Amino acid sequence: MRIIIDAMGGDNAPNAIVSGAVRAARELNTEVVLVGRGADILKALEQQGITNLPKGVEVANAEDVVDMHDDPSTVVRKRRDSSMVVGLRMLSEGKGDAFISAGSTGAVLTAATLIVKRIPGIRRAAMAPILPTATGRCVLIDCGANAECTPEFLLQFACMGSFYAKTTLGIDNPRVGLLNIGAEDSKGTELQRQTYSLLQRLSEAGAIQFIGNVEARDVPLGGADVVVADGFSGNILLKTMEGTAKLVTGEMKKVFLQNGLTKLAALICKKGLGELKQKMDYREVGGTPFLGVTKPVIKAHGSSDELAVFHAVRQAVETVQSDLVGAIEANMEYLAVPKELDHAE
Amino acid sequence: MRIIIDAMGGDNAPNAIVSGAVRAARELNTEVVLVGRGADILKALEQQGITNLPKGVEVANAEDVVDMHDDPSTVVRKRRDSSMVVGLRMLSEGKGDAFISAGSTGAVLTAATLIVKRIPGIRRAAMAPILPTATGRCVLIDCGANAECTPEFLLQFACMGSFYAKTTLGIDNPRVGLLNIGAEDSKGTELQRQTYSLLQRLSEAGAIQFIGNVEARDVPLGGADVVVADGFSGNILLKTMEGTAKLVTGEMKKVFLQNGLTKLAALICKKGLGELKQKMDYREVGGTPFLGVTKPVIKAHGSSDELAVFHAVRQAVETVQSDLVGAIEANMEYLAVPKELDHAE
Repeated sequence: MRIIIDAMGGDNAPNAIVSGAVRAARELNTEVVLVGRGADILKALEQQGITNLPKGVEVANAEDVVDMHDDPSTVVRKRRDSSMVVGLRMLSEGKGDAFISAGSTGAVLTAATLIVKRIPGIRRAAMAPILPTATGRCVLIDCGANAECTPEFLLQFACMGSFYAKTTLGIDNPRVGLLNIGAEDSKGTELQRQTYSLLQRLSEAGAIQFIGNVEARDVPLGGADVVVADGFSGNILLKTMEGTAKLVTGEMKKVFLQNGLTKLAALICKKGLGELKQKMDYREVGGTPFLGVTKPVIKAHGSSDELAVFHAVRQAVETVQSDLVGAIEANMEYLAVPKELDHAE
Repeated sequence: MRIIIDAMGGDNAPNAIVSGAVRAARELNTEVVLVGRGADILKALEQQGITNLPKGVEVANAEDVVDMHDDPSTVVRKRRDSSMVVGLRMLSEGKGDAFISAGSTGAVLTAATLIVKRIPGIRRAAMAPILPTATGRCVLIDCGANAECTPEFLLQFACMGSFYAKTTLGIDNPRVGLLNIGAEDSKGTELQRQTYSLLQRLSEAGAIQFIGNVEARDVPLGGADVVVADGFSGNILLKTMEGTAKLVTGEMKKVFLQNGLTKLAALICKKGLGELKQKMDYREVGGTPFLGVTKPVIKAHGSSDELAVFHAVRQAVETVQSDLVGAIEANMEYLAVPKELDHAE
């Protein structure tokens, strides 16, 4: 397997990207292709004491870099020699099995849609991160790729999310919930009310197991295996979880630092606390796949460090192995939008 | 001061409501009026060993009760003898200074709007809970009263939230942020983009201190003193914080229960853990005021117990003392919606 990696994207590029990729090549038995300014990549390798390219690690030169200030809609045209665009082109040409970038989310999504292209019939590609819950993990779809959505988009997100939960989390018949502000089907805005009835129909057709609305409070508690949301509220959910976990663990830390005895208590609990931190740590989850494009594209966190990049590669490998794209293509009959509800292309 | 309390609203009514109100009358030096079925209220008092009405506690009879299944829009008409409607009528007639209910949120909002009425010029009343943050507390407005909003609504929410943060949290010049999925003013949906420029103008006029967009991740970390949101995404934020705090503290508990030593560690940290729990506990915050109506109306959590009711009364007392309604009325010039943006009544 060959994973193509944008070596220049993200806050800690290229160093963290390069070292995470090298570690992944070594430990995960996969090839990685680092795309970016050759000189910068070699320098990053050198800083780790690597003077010859390790086995399984390749470099593909791309002189330009996509900036966080670049308008996503012009990246493919104006940054054609950037690491992101070159890498995505390699993916689309079959020169690798998956692509990872920690660069600008908007740019990755737009460029992936234009270069790798959506699966025919899919209206929008969506970001589907995996969240920790009290009972395990769940898939959230979408979390920000599409701030404004139609019920048709959400119908397809529900299906894609369900396949993803099946293949990645190994859940046979995932419970699909619609993120809403109450349990009753009359709750929310027009978007939620229309989506509710679409998902009910899809559930009756046997394509997914729709369990109704899920309130945000119940998402971290394991209320659904797949949480379907427009990109705006999905993003609020994802980021609030991140911030709240940080708030609570920060307060915990203050408790442990109070005096010598509490510091001892922290020592006693060290292993458990480490596991908890790991559970809540975005870096362990890896990246967020874009579901709906023809090949696996993974967005790593902008502030990814070596560990996060390593896990993003692990996740890319798993996504390729599980043939998620194949599962979506094989189920397009369910994903087809009912004609009478065909609002937008 | 006289606080009117819906004795029949909420999961634990009337017992928890009655005992919380009695405690508040005793400790907060205020009068409370319990509205509801007289026999049920007396029975609840008896269960606490109280056979004569304590000083400062009154009972006002109301034979009917608003149900969680009642359509909020018909409550005032169909449940005119309910504790909620009778209590709100008493408030509007000046028979008390504030009203508290733990009953159906939709019903309280609709009934309060119809009976107590909005402050002239205010488009929508909004729910403004106080959230714990890493650096203190912040006001969220709205958190669910208005699932669908216009930029004009949000403009007024920003102002009301700023006054509320000033009077309740004692912050001189509160930092007002717009909940969004990115920092740039181009982020979000049309609603956020239009609201952004309205808030910028309001800030230039000196009415509020607008600090731009605030991402959900930064809300629990103290990124703003006032977080302005439509009711849908505000509700997602509020409920995700609640669920995530529960997830993390639940996982913490597992760590402490692992073995004898970790249980000892929990004992050592008991005081600090108690304070942390208190910080994250909705019951300590009290209720959520509806801002924008002519008198203080406070919605207590549906599952309020005695402690939550006690704090809701404390909050009602503080809201009356701070004359928030007066502050909003005195600033209607800033709250007036610019003519060219006058979308909806």
